[in-house]
Amino acid sequence: MSDQMQRITLASRPNGAPVAENFSLQTSALPVPGPDEVLVKLHYMSLDPYMRGRMDDAKSYAAPVAIGGTMEAGAVGEVIASNSPAFQPGDFAFGLFGWASHGCLPANQLQKLNPDHGPITAALGVLGMPGLTGWYGLNEYGKPKAGETLVVAAATGPVGSMVGQLAKRAGLRTIGIAGGAEKCALAVDTFGFDACLDHRAFADASALRAELATACPNGIDIYFENVAGKVLEAVIPLMNPHGRIPVCGMISWYGGAQGADATLTAPMIWRNILVKFLSVKGFIIMNHFDRYPDFQKEVGPLVANGDIRFLEDIAEGLENAPAAFMAMLKGGNMGKQIVKLV
Amino acid sequence: MSDQMQRITLASRPNGAPVAENFSLQTSALPVPGPDEVLVKLHYMSLDPYMRGRMDDAKSYAAPVAIGGTMEAGAVGEVIASNSPAFQPGDFAFGLFGWASHGCLPANQLQKLNPDHGPITAALGVLGMPGLTGWYGLNEYGKPKAGETLVVAAATGPVGSMVGQLAKRAGLRTIGIAGGAEKCALAVDTFGFDACLDHRAFADASALRAELATACPNGIDIYFENVAGKVLEAVIPLMNPHGRIPVCGMISWYGGAQGADATLTAPMIWRNILVKFLSVKGFIIMNHFDRYPDFQKEVGPLVANGDIRFLEDIAEGLENAPAAFMAMLKGGNMGKQIVKLV
Repeated sequence: MSDQMQRITLASRPNGAPVAENFSLQTSALPVPGPDEVLVKLHYMSLDPYMRGRMDDAKSYAAPVAIGGTMEAGAVGEVIASNSPAFQPGDFAFGLFGWASHGCLPANQLQKLNPDHGPITAALGVLGMPGLTGWYGLNEYGKPKAGETLVVAAATGPVGSMVGQLAKRAGLRTIGIAGGAEKCALAVDTFGFDACLDHRAFADASALRAELATACPNGIDIYFENVAGKVLEAVIPLMNPHGRIPVCGMISWYGGAQGADATLTAPMIWRNILVKFLSVKGFIIMNHFDRYPDFQKEVGPLVANGDIRFLEDIAEGLENAPAAFMAMLKGGNMGKQIVKLV
Repeated sequence: MSDQMQRITLASRPNGAPVAENFSLQTSALPVPGPDEVLVKLHYMSLDPYMRGRMDDAKSYAAPVAIGGTMEAGAVGEVIASNSPAFQPGDFAFGLFGWASHGCLPANQLQKLNPDHGPITAALGVLGMPGLTGWYGLNEYGKPKAGETLVVAAATGPVGSMVGQLAKRAGLRTIGIAGGAEKCALAVDTFGFDACLDHRAFADASALRAELATACPNGIDIYFENVAGKVLEAVIPLMNPHGRIPVCGMISWYGGAQGADATLTAPMIWRNILVKFLSVKGFIIMNHFDRYPDFQKEVGPLVANGDIRFLEDIAEGLENAPAAFMAMLKGGNMGKQIVKLV
């Protein structure tokens, strides 16, 4: 085996949308695992919108990636050396290894995977953090009730598609929002949404809202928030009394661009919260990993038997991760974005 | 007794802050109570910020007051005629009679008062809707824990002073915000706040925030929202992870003026909700009157023995209600605003 590894570091902080120059491909010596550590040759890594936030030097729930530091990511791969009795070479594991060809972590930070239970990429999406995010946020904060109406954007992404499918199973009317006719067809045909609106087809939030009002004749009870921006502006006046808004992301605002959303004001948000008695709850899934076993027990079998479907968009090669990431932030992916590393 | 009554109606809808011309004093015949109805000669009526919202023709939790309709208010007075066995002339009662000298309502919409249990004005403030609002919002959505820090504005008003005193009793650090040095002294000396900041002493939200940060060395866990605007802008970046924001009002935005708050953007609110895992919950107390007996049981004795203190600002005469209301919206009152009618 080679004694070298590649990783992608943060070369500079983006100003708005990331550009290629913000990333740097570095080669370094393969680490030697210390006591209780495990060295893994990575096969697949995950690309997720939250990584955009880590590129900014802003106070958040997690420290930003340092300039010169390895970009963060969850990844899966094969153990090639282990100083822990819990892992043997040939085992497969998931961990927060970063954008890299190899990774070395303490055994207690890894999760062993069984490749017989399905593709190991599922640990990055439908049965990983995005799936858990959708399941936890919907149930814990969305509190779905049969007969209600749910709206979620990025409807064909790994969070939105999980939310939509679980809500449908719970007896809700599910309305997706996605970018482009192809994704909208996918949302309805593959993920069972009752309808899906193409946000690109509407000039502004008012136009999108008018169509949403038609698609949601009884109003909106749950808006699962992962995009903010124009979609939030369209949705919030349509919320029903006692509505719930779990907030797990705001991809359209990560770049800091706000010009297009200037008509969505703070008073408009606050007034709707007050007069509709809304519950708005921010969360990140890393605070709730203790619920992973419950999630796996409930959703794992549904994925295995095909009742919960998922879609992956796989880019090839670590060196192409920045381009795939930049495209994903603009909605260029079709399903969960993954990078194949070997 | 006179066979006439006075009431104040909505003559026109305000554009921003209400003006005298929006109100009209009308004289009409005293109503004759129908079956099961009770006629009450009103002694005191309440003025509350929510009434500003009722003057707008905007979709809200309650229908707006119609042009020519009587302004809404809770009021207390003495029964002068009754077609219900539940009330006798001479009894005292609370009801939503409106801005008027007399009122006639079905007996089941009235609450009998016992004047031996303290001043009947308490039913309009500390033991009425404002007190219940503070008690319910703090406990149900604020979820106070000893050692935490709470911030509330309008700290000497009937909601803010209830919230501050209950939070202090629960072991929290309590920081009030009020308009003017006199109110700030009152907040500390009478209502036991650990500190109270005069929002008028700060040119903008940044300056207020800097002082708040000093007063809240461990950050803010609960922001009880009743004013919005500059205070919200100052507070929200200081919220701690897992913070709670019960929202019962936004007095600074009722007039629609937003220029001074232009730096408080929708993304700033949404981002803080996400990265601090905040819980934001709008509510109005009329949805929770079922909790009134619990409130009365817990807080009634505390008011009776002086552990919970309250302050009333009493204007004289129905004809002066509009002026008192307009002044209250600008913070001109000192304590719960009431109008004495007889």
